[in-house]
Amino acid sequence: MHSIKNNGTGKTSIAVDMDGVLANVYARFLEMHKLDTGEIFSPDYLIGKPEAVAFPHILKHVNSAGFFRSADLIPGCREVMERLNEVYAVFIVSAAMEFPNSLKEKYDWLAEHFPFIHWSQIVLCGSKSLINTDIMIDDHFKNLDFFKGSKTLLFTQPHNAIADPGRHIRVHNWEEIARLLL
Amino acid sequence: MHSIKNNGTGKTSIAVDMDGVLANVYARFLEMHKLDTGEIFSPDYLIGKPEAVAFPHILKHVNSAGFFRSADLIPGCREVMERLNEVYAVFIVSAAMEFPNSLKEKYDWLAEHFPFIHWSQIVLCGSKSLINTDIMIDDHFKNLDFFKGSKTLLFTQPHNAIADPGRHIRVHNWEEIARLLL
Repeated sequence: MHSIKNNGTGKTSIAVDMDGVLANVYARFLEMHKLDTGEIFSPDYLIGKPEAVAFPHILKHVNSAGFFRSADLIPGCREVMERLNEVYAVFIVSAAMEFPNSLKEKYDWLAEHFPFIHWSQIVLCGSKSLINTDIMIDDHFKNLDFFKGSKTLLFTQPHNAIADPGRHIRVHNWEEIARLLL
Repeated sequence: MHSIKNNGTGKTSIAVDMDGVLANVYARFLEMHKLDTGEIFSPDYLIGKPEAVAFPHILKHVNSAGFFRSADLIPGCREVMERLNEVYAVFIVSAAMEFPNSLKEKYDWLAEHFPFIHWSQIVLCGSKSLINTDIMIDDHFKNLDFFKGSKTLLFTQPHNAIADPGRHIRVHNWEEIARLLL
């Protein structure tokens, strides 16, 4: 595939989402919901529910200091990202602006776990509507549906698990992403 | 002008830079340089010099806590931005990622001075190469030269004052921006 965008590198460009694609925010939601209420959800309970429906205190959670900084990695993402970063113009694009206290946490989290990603490859935004890359990997239809690039990968998370991906390619894990893009 | 981009609003979209377009960072550089060295530059001395050449301690300055938070507004920008925001899909796009401690300061500064700008309209990035709007207003050629939209406005600052704007439209102040775009 040849890049249709000018990103200064001539490489095909990818916008990779953070929450739910690189960062395991569901594990954090489950952990904080249990701390708050004592409830432990079965995995089935979460399927098909928007995050804010499954976790009624989600706004409190994501506004808690350390919520993003201490998130675990989604398995396999670091290794595949390192290989993608050699071949593609990789950008990490996170709709973080709703939670301004998360901005520095997200930067620090990326610096710790993805030392091969330069600061020039990070975008923290409100809306992804003005992001112009060839490929987008995201777990939210609101980002993928309006994307103008050529390829969209829907990363499976409980909230989107029973939705029809439509024109998007559903991927369940980072091994599938590696098979598709490497 | 009809929007060529899908930003979900149908409006023509504008990416507006912060430093040197909304925020008067030169006044901050001059102030901090004077505090550091006792030197007061004549305005002529700054003309045509890259910021890092004119201000040898610039990295120390921009990494100082409060540097961005306490910047003054460029005259007229708030009033014109408020009117632009009614007609256009306005995004404030700042290449802030090199200075991660500035991220929250920039958010807070915007919230104070531009209360009519929603968080969804803010982008803090490393490179502007993946920003897709119709119009860009910026004081740096490195951002304007690779922009793929239809109109680029070069905002005059000492560092760019004697450069040939080439395909960009030079504007000297916010009154000129209002005359061009409103």
